[in-house]
Amino acid sequence: MTTPKRISGVLAPVVTPFKPDLSPDPERYVRHCKWLLDNGCRGLAVFGTNSEANSLSIEERMVLLETLILEGVPADKLMPGTGCCSLTDSVRLTSHAVALGCAGVLMLPPFYYKGVSDDGLYRNFAEVIERVGDARLQLYLYHIPPVSQVPITLALIERLLKRFPETVAGVKDSSGDWSNTKAMLDAFAKSGFDVFAGSEVFLLDNMKNGGKGCITATGNINPGAISKVFETWSGPNADALQKDITATRNVMQKYPMMAALKAVIAHYARDPEWATVRPPLVELTPAQNKGLIAELGARGFDMPGLAAAGATAIA
Amino acid sequence: MTTPKRISGVLAPVVTPFKPDLSPDPERYVRHCKWLLDNGCRGLAVFGTNSEANSLSIEERMVLLETLILEGVPADKLMPGTGCCSLTDSVRLTSHAVALGCAGVLMLPPFYYKGVSDDGLYRNFAEVIERVGDARLQLYLYHIPPVSQVPITLALIERLLKRFPETVAGVKDSSGDWSNTKAMLDAFAKSGFDVFAGSEVFLLDNMKNGGKGCITATGNINPGAISKVFETWSGPNADALQKDITATRNVMQKYPMMAALKAVIAHYARDPEWATVRPPLVELTPAQNKGLIAELGARGFDMPGLAAAGATAIA
Repeated sequence: MTTPKRISGVLAPVVTPFKPDLSPDPERYVRHCKWLLDNGCRGLAVFGTNSEANSLSIEERMVLLETLILEGVPADKLMPGTGCCSLTDSVRLTSHAVALGCAGVLMLPPFYYKGVSDDGLYRNFAEVIERVGDARLQLYLYHIPPVSQVPITLALIERLLKRFPETVAGVKDSSGDWSNTKAMLDAFAKSGFDVFAGSEVFLLDNMKNGGKGCITATGNINPGAISKVFETWSGPNADALQKDITATRNVMQKYPMMAALKAVIAHYARDPEWATVRPPLVELTPAQNKGLIAELGARGFDMPGLAAAGATAIA
Repeated sequence: MTTPKRISGVLAPVVTPFKPDLSPDPERYVRHCKWLLDNGCRGLAVFGTNSEANSLSIEERMVLLETLILEGVPADKLMPGTGCCSLTDSVRLTSHAVALGCAGVLMLPPFYYKGVSDDGLYRNFAEVIERVGDARLQLYLYHIPPVSQVPITLALIERLLKRFPETVAGVKDSSGDWSNTKAMLDAFAKSGFDVFAGSEVFLLDNMKNGGKGCITATGNINPGAISKVFETWSGPNADALQKDITATRNVMQKYPMMAALKAVIAHYARDPEWATVRPPLVELTPAQNKGLIAELGARGFDMPGLAAAGATAIA
């Protein structure tokens, strides 16, 4: 691998705020992205699963990405999701991200058809890479079988790496199965393939085995503590720090994740509009909301400076 | 229900032909649509699962739909698929179809997020209906859990029918589970909710229980024989005719359906380019192709006039 600087560390799949009419809210979006970068995230995996990205149109995503960069979020900190069901959409979003100078893209497989072959998936990724045709492209494969229902197998990674060694940069493993992450690390990490855990629960294990960090839902609300595990994973306090972030994650996992993330931000930003989600998701019930905030409060959880961050928003 | 004329009969989810560069091929598309309407299909459910619709961009679908109508395919025979993961895309495609005078739309639920609630799905469909805001809209729900992994429950249908009785017109049940189709018929058919079986295997049973026809993959290649079951379902030969179309279906089901449909059209049209599929699908292997054509030939299967239909294509 010859690419000089690859992104690493803790990345948040940034939640996408909506206005009451369900249109994306660029002001809150920029503000939250800046808060995340100021509070531990080394990068932003915008337009991930937790971003409700697949509930946005292609144009809505492109406008939001352009807005972030215009408002001063560095493109080299961005890893937008660009994998769509349609080949032409994936090419369009990926070309757009590369042209804007993004650090990389995180690419879902086409996820409508199930039981498709590795041959078909290989052909999809190969067509995207060839059509984008840009040496700057750093492609991270997105393995999230519980949601996409279309897995990225080790055999597929091997085949893609062999054909596109300069482009296929890594993977986000959101299988929730550490043995799968470990197999990816064992097979490919030494050759410069960057493995990100899909949850901070596996962050310390991932770092000990040659991984590069994590891209995690709760990076949206707890970036400081998660980042500390990344920064000090080889130090004496790593196990205790890991235990703490896992405990916070476990609270969040009792609730529907995307609605819960937004409810937490709404609470700590003192900004109820943040709670809005697009269908088919629904907001937390008042009882869920109360329970979640109480549980986090009991852990001493906080999002420092979030309520004041409004001052840095788009005028 | 006050709508004067609803579509019924056999509809094909029209396969979408691609050029060698994988762009949609409007010439072959128009030609096939006209052949289908001349050979038994009462309507065309363009942009369905078997159309590889989710492998097309929104713009590619809109251009193809406009092309069909400009080239003389009657809009009142068309039931395009318009359900996307993104609310804004679903609204855009549905508004477009209604503005063009389409008979109805066949709407998938948003299918990226799994395990979503009926509340969230209700909100999705209700938002689409309200945002389209056009009394001409006839919405058919698309239940295909083996692919979408997001079911349309009886409770959801009941709730939507109660709120939008003039708009929610029916369902395509591609569950493959006759007991589910029967439950939909028993619960809603008498109140004017039109149930289409998702396979001709259930066509006779559907008609006997108050259904309105079928929307079936193999309608692309066997519309005449399937249509005969629809036209004569109460006659003395219905069981024998049903047995025959089921046998042909069973041959097709031994192969990956979309690639097999295109291979059959390529063979009978003497037009090898028809076999092209977009990733993540792959074409049949030569051995599969040979086996499929031989099995159909042994059944005396034919697609009359298909090879000559080129004459009716776009100049």
